[in-house]
This record gives sequence, structure tokens and C-alpha cells, in this order.
Amino acid sequence: MLHVGIDLGGTAIKAGAVDENGRILARQEIPTGFERGAEDVLDRSRRSRVRWAPSRASGWARRAWSTTPAGACSPARTCTACRACRWWPVWRDDWGCCRPGVRLENDANAAALGESWLGRGRDERDFLLVTLGTGVGGGLILDGKLYAGPGGMAGEVGHVVIEPGGPLCGCGGHGCLETLASATAAARRAREAGLPRSNPGDLIELAARARAGAADERALCEAIGRDLGHGLALVVSLLDLRCFVIGGGFGAALDVLLPGVRAGLFERSYGERLAGVRVLRAELGADAGWIGAARLGMLHA
Amino acid sequence: MLHVGIDLGGTAIKAGAVDENGRILARQEIPTGFERGAEDVLDRSRRSRVRWAPSRASGWARRAWSTTPAGACSPARTCTACRACRWWPVWRDDWGCCRPGVRLENDANAAALGESWLGRGRDERDFLLVTLGTGVGGGLILDGKLYAGPGGMAGEVGHVVIEPGGPLCGCGGHGCLETLASATAAARRAREAGLPRSNPGDLIELAARARAGAADERALCEAIGRDLGHGLALVVSLLDLRCFVIGGGFGAALDVLLPGVRAGLFERSYGERLAGVRVLRAELGADAGWIGAARLGMLHA
Repeated sequence: MLHVGIDLGGTAIKAGAVDENGRILARQEIPTGFERGAEDVLDRSRRSRVRWAPSRASGWARRAWSTTPAGACSPARTCTACRACRWWPVWRDDWGCCRPGVRLENDANAAALGESWLGRGRDERDFLLVTLGTGVGGGLILDGKLYAGPGGMAGEVGHVVIEPGGPLCGCGGHGCLETLASATAAARRAREAGLPRSNPGDLIELAARARAGAADERALCEAIGRDLGHGLALVVSLLDLRCFVIGGGFGAALDVLLPGVRAGLFERSYGERLAGVRVLRAELGADAGWIGAARLGMLHA
Repeated sequence: MLHVGIDLGGTAIKAGAVDENGRILARQEIPTGFERGAEDVLDRSRRSRVRWAPSRASGWARRAWSTTPAGACSPARTCTACRACRWWPVWRDDWGCCRPGVRLENDANAAALGESWLGRGRDERDFLLVTLGTGVGGGLILDGKLYAGPGGMAGEVGHVVIEPGGPLCGCGGHGCLETLASATAAARRAREAGLPRSNPGDLIELAARARAGAADERALCEAIGRDLGHGLALVVSLLDLRCFVIGGGFGAALDVLLPGVRAGLFERSYGERLAGVRVLRAELGADAGWIGAARLGMLHA
């Protein structure tokens, strides 16, 4: 049986179909054009449905979407009752996601489910997926299942405060992890440190220079990693978790962040737990979201 | 059917029997004498078994303990495999707790289970029990079940760092919640503020004076509450929890801590969640642990 997943993201809409054994049968991606505003997203997602379902994909995809269990995710808060997206009503009205059999989920939660099913978390019973991108997102797998919490937004490690009085966050708080360890924050910190090519898209180069031994880049990556470690330490203390799976674009720099991450964990985690804590690189990349969304539909079929 | 629970605590050993409907049929408490060291605890717990089971309680209690599902808890880390206590081997050797049918659990986890079954959390699907005592402990009920985590010590909110570089904690960290909002910390802060009668046992008086409007006592309770709020805010951000149940001796001062708690939650929790967050007073008092332990035995019968 086929299962369809869709990930309506800030920069791209990804969709695909997968069977029960995790074999990926189809995959599509189109740019969201988010920078042109919500109206544009609505418009593009309308067009993407048309392009994706009946014409670009074969007939089975359309049938699958309208008849099989399916899942969808977006970078948004979901309604706890119907799991419909509150921020982007396109889900409800345009995609027919509120029909029975379609499940909606926050994108980081879906990514956690994806990594838990087919990715780096497949052998882990308890872990936190952390996405380092424009922001810092997260999704929790506890006792082998997605834990979304009573409000549907559990796992949002990006907004734990690790530096009281630190930089202002988009959420209104100060010193949230997101203000120090997201790709956006890394670019800002690189600019502040006077490092060259410090746009978010150039963070791979920053990491490459750190890897090659450039002192300033290395120090910055270690400092960012340390802040990330401070955030993860809170999770170790509170949930006694021993496994973290790091995804998102900036997660590709995990190797150069890791010495800092371990130092940060050591500084702020409880007791002698550090030795058992593993910080791993996610495996599914940009596919984690739609795969997790498809899995969600499968689990609730 | 009867279910027996035992709570081997720092200051007292509590034990009791309860039926499936939560009717308490027997209850006993003797001082642990912990201050005289671990050997004394061993000795007293040996004697307490003798006193409790066959003579002080009626014959059914002894039969219940040796034949029915039972649970036990202590302020200790438990082995993740057999759930036997690592720190106080009395459980294993002397009390026969490792026989099939007896479950062991960390005491704050057991208290969370107790409050979830018969106490303030009975209508809550997701909450964190926080005990404000000598230290700050915690136990998590997620999706209606105890979540102990892979290491068995989830819920330990006392060791989340809320003030980096703050007071040294017994765990080796700095600025853990426990160093600022436990009964011990409250007594220390009262001394530092030059307030009268500031031993841990006198915190009820401190709260009473704050309640009566004494400015210094009030300010201190608000400051302690604010730190507690900072700790809870991390839990709101990470787990999206909306309910906290506060127990422990110093939890009796919750009413005077609460304005500070709400301010602290506001300062550090994510988004507009604060409005839905409830901070409640635990109901079972010192019975929460053994009741939860009995429940644990019942659930795993």
C-alpha cells in the first residue's frame, strides 16, 4: 500500500510516496517562494498540487493522495484537536487535509518521525531530533513514539533559554538557543567576528575553513557548538535522553561543532551522564519531513 | 486485591496498602534517621520491615508484601534493567525487592504516578510533578503514563541550569534550579537576606509572614518563585506542558511563590503559551511516593 507525505516548507514544497517497507517510490520538490509572502505560498501550493498530483506524477499519486492514508507537515503550530494548521489555512481549504485519513503535524515533529522510521534514529527508542536551519527546531521520540505534547509543539528546543539576557529572539524571549545556534545566528556571529562570506548560505564554507584549521572559524564553530551543548544539556537533565540527532542545513557542520557541543554538555548536564550521550548526524536530509508525514498517515491509518 | 507500596525516604520510611479503587487500607511511617548515615538507614530499614510487616500491621500486610504485586521507591537512581536501586542495596538484599512482581522506581517518579492516580494530576494527561524539599525533584507523566527516560531519571527539573554561573550545586553544576528554589536554598537565601528563623523547618513561618504582608519575606518568596518559574518555562518550551503539580514540604508555600512563578514563566517561556499554564498544589502530601509505588506494582502485575 502506498503512503503519501507532503512537507510545505519555508523554501520548498516536498512531496513523495513510500510503501510500508520504507521504499521511496516517488519524490518531488518545488520552490515555495516564501520570501514573497504568504499569498504567494498559497498560490504556489495551489499550483504545486496541480503539478504534482495529476500531471507531474503518474495517476497513482493522485489516487493515493485522495484515497490512501496520508500525512502533511509545515513549519507551523497545529491545532491540537484536528491537527489542522492554524497559520497556513491552505492545508485545510485547498489541500483537503482535514478529510478523514489525513494527519497534519509540525515539520520538526514529522522529521523526527522520519528519522525514527528510516533514518539515524531507527535503532533509538528515545531521542531528540534537532534541526539547525533558519531557526532551531526539534521533535521528540519518546518510548519509540512521537511525543507532540498537549499543545502539539513539544520538542521546540530552539526556544529554551540558555543565556538569560542574551540576544532578542523572534519569539519575544532573550537568549533562546535559536538566537545562538541557528544558521541565521551563525551567519550573524560570523559577521560580528569579521569573518568573510558569512551569509547563511555560506555556512558550509565557514565549516570547511574551520575543518581546514582556520583559527577564527574554528573558534566560532566551537562557541556555537558550546551553546548548542548548553541547550542539549537541559534535555539530558530533564528527560534523561542520551541520543540527539542533528539535522537541518547547518547540521552538516556537526563535525566542527561537536567539540564545542561536548564541552557545553559537560558544563551544564546533570551528574555523570555525559559519557553515554551520543550526538549524531541526521541521515534523511531534506526528505525527513515528508517521509515522517507519510509515516504519520501510515500509523494512523 | 491489595497492593503494597514502600517509600524509603531521606527522613522517613513510609509504607501502606491500597486496593484497586485507591482506597487506603493501611499506612505506617517511621523515621529513617538518615542523618546518622547509610549504615543506620540499613539497620533501621531492617527493623522497620520487622515492625511493619508482621507485628504493627496485621497478617494480611505481610502476606500482601510477599505475594502481591508491590512497588517501592527511594531518592535514588534505579538500575534501568532490573530497576533495582544502585545506591541503597538494602532494597535488593534485605527487602527482597528484586523478586518478580516488585517494581522499583525513583521517588519523585513514584510521587508523580501517585498524584496522577489519586491526587492533583488525576484529570491530567500530561504534567510535571515538582517536589520542593531538601532538593528539587520531579517526575513526568506524558500521555497519561510515567515517562522515566532511557536512564530512569527523567523529570529531574532540579538540575536544569537556569542561572549560568550561579551557586554551586551538589551535582557539580552551577545555577541548577535546585540551588535557587529548594527548601534548602530558600533557607540559605533567607539567612543571606538577614531574615529571622530561616532554618529549612521554619520555611512555613517564612511563608506565613510573606502571606501576612511582610515586605522582605514577600520579596524573597517572589524571587524564589521567579527562579522556579524560569525552570518551569524550560519545560513549557521543550515539552509544551501546560500543567505543573507542586509537592514537597516547601510546596506548601506555593500561594506566596505563585506571583513570582508566573513572572518567571512569562520571562522565559515560548510564545503565548503562558495563558494556558496551570501551576497546582499537589494533594497527596507525603503519601504520594508509596501510593505511586503501589500503583507501579499494580500496573505491572
